[in-house]
Amino acid sequence: MSLLFKHLRVHQVFGANTDVGKTILTTALVRASAAQRDKVFYLKPVSTGPPQDADDAHVTSHMAKWKDRVQTHCLFRFQEPVSPHLAVKRAGASHSIPDDDTLANTIAAYVRRAASQCGPAHMYIETAGGVQSPTLSGVLQADLYRRLFLPAILVGDSKLGGISTTISAYESLLLRGYDVDAILLFEDDYYRNFEYLHDYFKERNVDVFTTQPPPPKLAAAAENFAATEKYYADITSSDHHRGVTAALEHLDTIHNQRISYLGSMATRARDTIWWPFVQHGHVKTDHDVNVIHSAYSDFFSVYNPSHRANHAANNDSSTANPSPSLLNPQYDGSASWWTQALGHAHPSLTLAAARVSGRYGHVMFPQATHAPALQLAETLVHDGPGRGWASKAFFSDDGSTGMEVAIKMALRFYTKAIEPGLPVEAWKQLGILGLKGSYHGDTIGTMDACEEGVYTCEWHNAKGYWFEPPTVSVQDGQATIALPSSFSVNTLLSPANYGFDSLGSIYDVESRLETPLAKVYRDHLTSKLKALHDAGGPRLAALVLEPLVMGAGGMIFVDPLFQRVMVEVVKAGAPGISKGLPVIFDEVFVGLYRLGMESTAPLLGVKPDISVHAKILTGGLLPLAITLASQPIFEAFLGDSKASALLHGHSYTAHPIGCEVANETLSIIRNTVSSDSWIEARKKWQADADRVSSVFSLWDPSFVKALSRLPQVKEVMTLGTVLALKISDGDSGYVSMSAQATFQSLKQLNDDPNAQSVAPGGAPYNVHYRTLGDIAYFMTSLNTSPGVIRSMEERIWSALEDNTP
Amino acid sequence: MSLLFKHLRVHQVFGANTDVGKTILTTALVRASAAQRDKVFYLKPVSTGPPQDADDAHVTSHMAKWKDRVQTHCLFRFQEPVSPHLAVKRAGASHSIPDDDTLANTIAAYVRRAASQCGPAHMYIETAGGVQSPTLSGVLQADLYRRLFLPAILVGDSKLGGISTTISAYESLLLRGYDVDAILLFEDDYYRNFEYLHDYFKERNVDVFTTQPPPPKLAAAAENFAATEKYYADITSSDHHRGVTAALEHLDTIHNQRISYLGSMATRARDTIWWPFVQHGHVKTDHDVNVIHSAYSDFFSVYNPSHRANHAANNDSSTANPSPSLLNPQYDGSASWWTQALGHAHPSLTLAAARVSGRYGHVMFPQATHAPALQLAETLVHDGPGRGWASKAFFSDDGSTGMEVAIKMALRFYTKAIEPGLPVEAWKQLGILGLKGSYHGDTIGTMDACEEGVYTCEWHNAKGYWFEPPTVSVQDGQATIALPSSFSVNTLLSPANYGFDSLGSIYDVESRLETPLAKVYRDHLTSKLKALHDAGGPRLAALVLEPLVMGAGGMIFVDPLFQRVMVEVVKAGAPGISKGLPVIFDEVFVGLYRLGMESTAPLLGVKPDISVHAKILTGGLLPLAITLASQPIFEAFLGDSKASALLHGHSYTAHPIGCEVANETLSIIRNTVSSDSWIEARKKWQADADRVSSVFSLWDPSFVKALSRLPQVKEVMTLGTVLALKISDGDSGYVSMSAQATFQSLKQLNDDPNAQSVAPGGAPYNVHYRTLGDIAYFMTSLNTSPGVIRSMEERIWSALEDNTP
Repeated sequence: MSLLFKHLRVHQVFGANTDVGKTILTTALVRASAAQRDKVFYLKPVSTGPPQDADDAHVTSHMAKWKDRVQTHCLFRFQEPVSPHLAVKRAGASHSIPDDDTLANTIAAYVRRAASQCGPAHMYIETAGGVQSPTLSGVLQADLYRRLFLPAILVGDSKLGGISTTISAYESLLLRGYDVDAILLFEDDYYRNFEYLHDYFKERNVDVFTTQPPPPKLAAAAENFAATEKYYADITSSDHHRGVTAALEHLDTIHNQRISYLGSMATRARDTIWWPFVQHGHVKTDHDVNVIHSAYSDFFSVYNPSHRANHAANNDSSTANPSPSLLNPQYDGSASWWTQALGHAHPSLTLAAARVSGRYGHVMFPQATHAPALQLAETLVHDGPGRGWASKAFFSDDGSTGMEVAIKMALRFYTKAIEPGLPVEAWKQLGILGLKGSYHGDTIGTMDACEEGVYTCEWHNAKGYWFEPPTVSVQDGQATIALPSSFSVNTLLSPANYGFDSLGSIYDVESRLETPLAKVYRDHLTSKLKALHDAGGPRLAALVLEPLVMGAGGMIFVDPLFQRVMVEVVKAGAPGISKGLPVIFDEVFVGLYRLGMESTAPLLGVKPDISVHAKILTGGLLPLAITLASQPIFEAFLGDSKASALLHGHSYTAHPIGCEVANETLSIIRNTVSSDSWIEARKKWQADADRVSSVFSLWDPSFVKALSRLPQVKEVMTLGTVLALKISDGDSGYVSMSAQATFQSLKQLNDDPNAQSVAPGGAPYNVHYRTLGDIAYFMTSLNTSPGVIRSMEERIWSALEDNTP
Repeated sequence: MSLLFKHLRVHQVFGANTDVGKTILTTALVRASAAQRDKVFYLKPVSTGPPQDADDAHVTSHMAKWKDRVQTHCLFRFQEPVSPHLAVKRAGASHSIPDDDTLANTIAAYVRRAASQCGPAHMYIETAGGVQSPTLSGVLQADLYRRLFLPAILVGDSKLGGISTTISAYESLLLRGYDVDAILLFEDDYYRNFEYLHDYFKERNVDVFTTQPPPPKLAAAAENFAATEKYYADITSSDHHRGVTAALEHLDTIHNQRISYLGSMATRARDTIWWPFVQHGHVKTDHDVNVIHSAYSDFFSVYNPSHRANHAANNDSSTANPSPSLLNPQYDGSASWWTQALGHAHPSLTLAAARVSGRYGHVMFPQATHAPALQLAETLVHDGPGRGWASKAFFSDDGSTGMEVAIKMALRFYTKAIEPGLPVEAWKQLGILGLKGSYHGDTIGTMDACEEGVYTCEWHNAKGYWFEPPTVSVQDGQATIALPSSFSVNTLLSPANYGFDSLGSIYDVESRLETPLAKVYRDHLTSKLKALHDAGGPRLAALVLEPLVMGAGGMIFVDPLFQRVMVEVVKAGAPGISKGLPVIFDEVFVGLYRLGMESTAPLLGVKPDISVHAKILTGGLLPLAITLASQPIFEAFLGDSKASALLHGHSYTAHPIGCEVANETLSIIRNTVSSDSWIEARKKWQADADRVSSVFSLWDPSFVKALSRLPQVKEVMTLGTVLALKISDGDSGYVSMSAQATFQSLKQLNDDPNAQSVAPGGAPYNVHYRTLGDIAYFMTSLNTSPGVIRSMEERIWSALEDNTP
């Protein structure tokens, strides 16, 4: 997907249907290009039908005048003139075919090789059949070639019905994000599709170029060839500035515009955009801006202006600069702020979004229902994280608003059901019980449910009390629990209470309930709560937890036993804590399989009263949040008066697109988590899919163990898709390295010209990663391929090796 | 769009291309239906080509056995066998053609008439050419027939290339929200598309039915007819349960499932959904739930179970029940909580959403850029509401989060640039200056910027001071300003100071700056602020206004002069108010032409430092908000330390779908606001498009004036798309009527069987409206047709007449 070269313009030619003149118009383009450029490439990745009729042979035969300039090539050839997937089948077992990635990589390698060997040039890659014809593997062309994301030329259909097929083919390309740079078609004077399509696409900013249709086929081969040759000469003549000639100029113009637009984006973004969580004072140059051209699976395709400079400097040496593409793949190491579940631009999610957008747009939600919202609510309540305890689903727009709703619910439950006699003046000061390091979003209400810290604002007014949590990590090869210093030294404990044979043992919460550590936790919580109460601490109205991991707080993996005990202590009541306090699980980050499990409640062995879900919920496509609540919580708002209802609502509440994308996501996730990759990963971690406590990771256990033994690494932790490393701060006296600095080399591209990477199209990739102080973390989607994860493990390992103390 | 009958199953038959066997397979369906039902309808809305070849003639000719059962019909016939739009052109001026709405209404009327006259029956409506072939007017079929939203049958293409055309045609239907109930196609044993398509669509839950292809055409007409007749007999034989017979059963099943699902939705929604702003105690029965089946332009299509009951009760009398559809159109009277700008399910917005979803999915935004976000930021800052003052655009998820961001910006500006010496402890208590009735969203931080009132929560802690505003309305035919009682009686003023010759005079703020009222406002503000300060009131850090109208507060139209003077007083400094206080304009509701103007700043003649935009921004499709800020505001966060940055961000910040839908919306709005309807409306209001102060409304001025003279109406107000009425509370002693009760009759359907409504498809419509206490309001989209608005005016008028005191 990262094949953009200044000197080499590449287009992929799609057809609105088979037999619309794709090869003829491509041949004309190749000829017209040959008249202008030293080199023109024509590639037919897959050809079906007898060799003498092959498209590449046709192209070659009509390039006598530019023999040395035009290079034609076909990668896979099948005899039978049927759809490629069928041609493969009929060719029998003798033909082994490449998988989709390999086919795309082979094409990409051809393009890169060509680019490294030529001066100003054009390339045309002609597809087979229509836009949505199956490829060798049976995957549709528009889907398979999406890995390459080449600008497209669509050859329209000039026959009766061709307006429909051309527009539908265009829409199929559009649904997959393609840039359609031009539409070409024949002028049929009777059906006159070209007239209609010209106007139709003008409104959509797509230029349509037309040319006369080819002469009728003649019986005698020589005569036919001569007539065809004359036809090509006519339509590519530079005399009349229209049709193919005009298309060529347009394609060059749009190519240059594409490059100059990319080149301008960083400056322009710095001019008008105010980024979230970014100190603009640190954005010193355009190089500090990530210019994202497109994305696919786990990779962005980003503009890399340094390549351009390299290329200019080295263009006398073709090997010195093996990858002069202006774009390169970049692994999305934070899963785009923890949202990605199925990879970027997943076509099923696009189709889900499109179909409900086409059906409803948005429709207002109070006291109303529509199918996407109803299905999503039912799934989450009955067959998702709410299973067994939730009764109602409340929709909002993002994790932060979902948590605002949760807090409003919990506070009302407290003032209505737990302490109904509390004077109204006390309501504003009700406190939240939580953990240090908590984060529930950036709206001020959710900030108030967390301690003040670096992430604050003028109105932030932390209400509550937050315990320092014991944490889990792998240190020097061993699964370990670390108690914070606020725990008084306890003679009950021996080292054996901290070290475990595996992460699995730590997360087997039920088996640890009677251990000395459990008693230490209970005592610690009870005594601290008593001390807090005695000191006149805040009245606590709810327990709010990010179960298992506090992400934004620094990927703090909390000992699940501590959270379990915390819930039990709170529910039972304690000094200053009323019995039955509502418990909120903020599962925005940790839920929906980010950590390998649908919900954290079964592992912890306790049920919340309220839980919040977002991020993965919508597959990493667009914002939507759900707050689930138990029936008692819901009933605290029930009554005769409107004023006692939950008076919270956003105008786009339960917008159908978000709901349907969530439905589609949850349905795809169901298959993903029982896929071979997940089974394999579980096996490696000796995790049992049927035991809720059986934790595992998509990252390799021996890699994790090895990492934890590196001197540069203080501790490592992993669950599900998440890998987090705490960087040693150099107690041996080395200059302290921040996590950001440690992994600096991930920003570089591999410069081995023969390297074939795991990125779409196989080009060398670099890594986009986020750090939290001395914590570096890397994340995958739920469906990231094992190959990509292994490659990332190698990259992480060598980045650390570069930093050997 | 509301044509769902229990007894009459209707399907629209689309083709993947022309010449794929649409008529043949439809004929087979009609025959198979005729064997089972007393009545079968075949409708060909538009036919091109010689009459003897017409599809309806073909169907008729093969129904000898069921002559009495099968009714065939063609609405528009053209001789030339080309695309309908071209056939019209070639038929010359002699042919007048219906516009798109009329064509759709004619078809709908045919369906409704059939439904009222038959028992259990089937109907097939065969389209012309492919899915995206142009209709008579040139509009594409899939777009035009979207008004009817009939379930679709897609006839697939069995020829070479047909996999591609079938899938693309399906995707074009999907993009417009259609339910594709089945795909039918011929079994071509060589190309075997049916095999591939069967598997492909199985994964997408669409059933594919196949049947043998028709026999080759014979030269002799009689023989050909006999062969064809035999063919139909074969493929519709009930012996082999596959192909057409199986399709028929499937279509019946899916029809029944559709109806029973609709029937279950209300109960199920009540079981699992917690609605925003709804007192569930008031939702007593399923009838209290609006079940939305689809939406189009300004109308929902809603499930109306009472029709079903009517129908059951009346099915012996065909005229007693003229509209037995289980769905009816419902005018979306609140523009779906003020979000709709271009009508529901606008295809351009769907395509915009789809193309960037296909290109990026979502990509993370800090220190990054992508084309949709960059374009949107540039448009809003330089060529939109930020023109002339804004420097940067900050993205968030909805109006409430956009306001949280605005408040964080203003508070920081205050503590950094205005009162840098202020002790940190004072920050938490900084106050907002605003107006009583303000509303800025439901997150707790934005609630704290408003007074406490009925919409509150435990943590709500109003920080600031709010003035009672003078208001604008039309009372008894006159544009009037009303001063609240908190204004001391002022001898400067005479009645002439309150009554104006037109709304235009009130909104001509510049001309009023030196009037006695302006002086009254200045004195009032200054003296109150001084009194507040003297009484130890809160330290005010920002002025936050909803310019012109406070929507959620009760559609309070504030005297613009008061807001202008307020900004001036605050900017100049006053007792307790530092000079240069930041001013926030919350334009979430009022901006982007909801009130007929892009932004309120030019009319008020003052520039904010921060403004917030949402709702219309994304065309009524999905959530996204933008907070615009001036350069000084931005610079208050600039520095070397990350901690001093604006530490706010949502994971889906600047999600590409939202940004691109906004770009498309703004581009369509540009055309809408210079459309004939807008020019016409301006003319009626004698408003000058070139003068910023020239206010107008899409509602008719004489209608508004007449309303204001009704005894039931205390006052009326309108600007742009908004019409608000305050209901008289019956000072003549009548029982007080709430706004909700007054308009109860809008919930009823017109029961005139011959009525042709302005709703899509022309069926009788009812109205969904929201009220705010004694205020009823009605809203249009920016592009609502004058016809629909006139119809709504009539409906509103008669509802009020029903309530004549």
